[in-house]
Amino acid sequence: MQNAPLRLGIAGLGTVGVGVVRTAQQNAALIAARAGRPVVVTGVCARSRDRDRGIALDAFAWEDDPIALARRDDVDVFVEVMGGHEGAARDAILAALDAGKDVVTANKALLALHGQDLALCAEAAGRQIRYEAAVAGGIPVIKALSEGLAANRITRVMGVMNGSCNYILTRMQSAGLSYADVFAEAMGLGYLEADPNLDVGGIDAGHKLAILASLAFGTRVDFGGVELEGIGAITIEDIRQAHDLGFRIKLLGVAQMTGRGLEQRMQPCLVPSNSPLGQLEGGTNMVVIEGDPVGQIVLRGPGAGEGPTASAVMADICDLARGTRQAVFGQPAKTLTAAPRARSALPAPYYLRLMLQDKPGALAKVAASLGDEGVSIHRMRQYDHTGDAAPVVIVTHKTTRGQLDLARDAMSRLDVITADPVALRIEQV
Amino acid sequence: MQNAPLRLGIAGLGTVGVGVVRTAQQNAALIAARAGRPVVVTGVCARSRDRDRGIALDAFAWEDDPIALARRDDVDVFVEVMGGHEGAARDAILAALDAGKDVVTANKALLALHGQDLALCAEAAGRQIRYEAAVAGGIPVIKALSEGLAANRITRVMGVMNGSCNYILTRMQSAGLSYADVFAEAMGLGYLEADPNLDVGGIDAGHKLAILASLAFGTRVDFGGVELEGIGAITIEDIRQAHDLGFRIKLLGVAQMTGRGLEQRMQPCLVPSNSPLGQLEGGTNMVVIEGDPVGQIVLRGPGAGEGPTASAVMADICDLARGTRQAVFGQPAKTLTAAPRARSALPAPYYLRLMLQDKPGALAKVAASLGDEGVSIHRMRQYDHTGDAAPVVIVTHKTTRGQLDLARDAMSRLDVITADPVALRIEQV
Repeated sequence: MQNAPLRLGIAGLGTVGVGVVRTAQQNAALIAARAGRPVVVTGVCARSRDRDRGIALDAFAWEDDPIALARRDDVDVFVEVMGGHEGAARDAILAALDAGKDVVTANKALLALHGQDLALCAEAAGRQIRYEAAVAGGIPVIKALSEGLAANRITRVMGVMNGSCNYILTRMQSAGLSYADVFAEAMGLGYLEADPNLDVGGIDAGHKLAILASLAFGTRVDFGGVELEGIGAITIEDIRQAHDLGFRIKLLGVAQMTGRGLEQRMQPCLVPSNSPLGQLEGGTNMVVIEGDPVGQIVLRGPGAGEGPTASAVMADICDLARGTRQAVFGQPAKTLTAAPRARSALPAPYYLRLMLQDKPGALAKVAASLGDEGVSIHRMRQYDHTGDAAPVVIVTHKTTRGQLDLARDAMSRLDVITADPVALRIEQV
Repeated sequence: MQNAPLRLGIAGLGTVGVGVVRTAQQNAALIAARAGRPVVVTGVCARSRDRDRGIALDAFAWEDDPIALARRDDVDVFVEVMGGHEGAARDAILAALDAGKDVVTANKALLALHGQDLALCAEAAGRQIRYEAAVAGGIPVIKALSEGLAANRITRVMGVMNGSCNYILTRMQSAGLSYADVFAEAMGLGYLEADPNLDVGGIDAGHKLAILASLAFGTRVDFGGVELEGIGAITIEDIRQAHDLGFRIKLLGVAQMTGRGLEQRMQPCLVPSNSPLGQLEGGTNMVVIEGDPVGQIVLRGPGAGEGPTASAVMADICDLARGTRQAVFGQPAKTLTAAPRARSALPAPYYLRLMLQDKPGALAKVAASLGDEGVSIHRMRQYDHTGDAAPVVIVTHKTTRGQLDLARDAMSRLDVITADPVALRIEQV
């Protein structure tokens, strides 16, 4: 059987599904050479049979129902690229496992929300679920973490994993535009999901972080444990002031194991301008993995789009064609631990921006609010007045999020503060 | 047998071997969880039994002869970290394959010079040779190229793969020191091989490039086909002038398939200052992989040292523990092609530096030498005289290496030129 073709059933013929069909056809010879056997599409399934997708579908069996596709005798691997974290995608994957098929999926939401159950099902059935395309598009980060760095005690995983948010933030900086303007531009260009909050609210990137954290720390995937904060509150002034201080603002995911449990954050952070993360422009993704004994590894590449996603899906398929087996989350699902959730447990410096009325003693009140909670000031800048208030930017010494939030609450109650202070963590990268 | 320990025999207890022992011990629990079975060291071999290496060896069988270690019944995987591309290392690997053992090695020279023969032997014996540690230290680039990007038609592989050279070049720039001064400093710090020409002559990095090219293009590894040029001719003036033009000088390896054959170059090049390669400082390595359909993937990390190298060796061991099988060069060795060697086949812009005497018509003669060979000038700068000659820097439009060399020869014969012109390719990255 080693040289028998591996037969794919592809559920979903959107951008990703079409990319997989195209790659399987265009690179058929080299895929067969590297995988040790031909890889062929035998069946497909999508909502509409008639839509012109720019590829010929005549050679493939057509199924209207993904579950029927998953159960076909001439399908070895069920490729789920429909999307959606409930209903059809999940049911079809379970049907495929039940029918003894391996599964390849690009569905980050499904894995982030139901990964543990799916992994238990797959492992009980002796089948594989592979999902390189679910995180950071074309970057082979699932493989790097679960195989290439398998001997490391991972200490931290970080990343910019939503290209649309990074596009918005870098475009605000380069063009000097407001968040609202760039958001509208990005919507017009089709860069954002139909529900843009999946992107700008950090949800999509949070799904990816939860998956990486499970692989990194041997914990059950726990999307509910991700502290989520979107980029909607970031102003052009924040971006400029961060720049003046030598930083860039990024929607950064960070997962690390602390003495109190697993910390998972997806929130706008300041990172040094001259770091690889700080230098990341536009829609590109970057994942930083730190471990012992390897040190720091940085992976960078396209995070979305037909080609990169198809590359990742097909890499999983090539692995299956070669007979490679791997536990869904890097080790058997029943051995994954349920880590306590540690909310911003580790202290860090913070960037604070507030609008201060021009009154005698105003700054002293702000300083007292911070001092009362044990938050000390590393750098402070007051800018020219805009209207009746002046922007003040404070960089604190390392403090816990708890102390900082108490100080912020106290500041918000001051009569000299005209708007709630913005607080952004400064991540040491 | 699935949960029986995987037993290692480690030949060589230098920095890398000690790192492998230490990692196998310190991370034993997580390695067992991820690999699905314990990984244990059963035997070791080195030149001196008495040297203090900071690790306890009492629990391991000792062999004086690596071949005896390779043949031990209680060794499943032979780990060759002795180094050297002839004699002992090669003989021991062949003995291990002959005895039915899989092999993990960090030996880039051996693979670059004898990889095809070793791959044929391993595949005839049905055994594995894995070598993640041979290229770019802790960066899982072998896995990325042969598995993570397996469905791509690779168009170009580039990289900074010798940390010592990158240290020298970035230190020259940051400290304003001459090549000779920084070279002496690096020797004193132990950053260079005992034969420093392996580093600064580009040989070590050339070995790595030849291995990557084989994986990328399905060709037999061909170190003899690498155009090699070291960094010894780079002056602080070149670094400064490149900087003024918006570039950095890097010892850059590039492999690409052209219409005339496989082009493999390891030579100092100019890359844009704001590119990931241009921003790479110090001893860090970076590999850039471009393919269809993925686009561009960039991998960055520590290229040498105990921890990074041990991480890579242990990743291969974890793969073997899981039962993963992979052809040595990504596809069966007998299917690898012998590509014709194409010397700098593709046109590129070049940086030229020459010392010009202060005589009327001098620049006209230089321009004529270029024009006569069809090389056109994109930018030109003449600097203040130093002594009786003035440095002139020329950036050409795209030209072939052949045309450029003819123009350089013509310039060298001019009476107004006081030293052979330096020519560095400007790589589009």
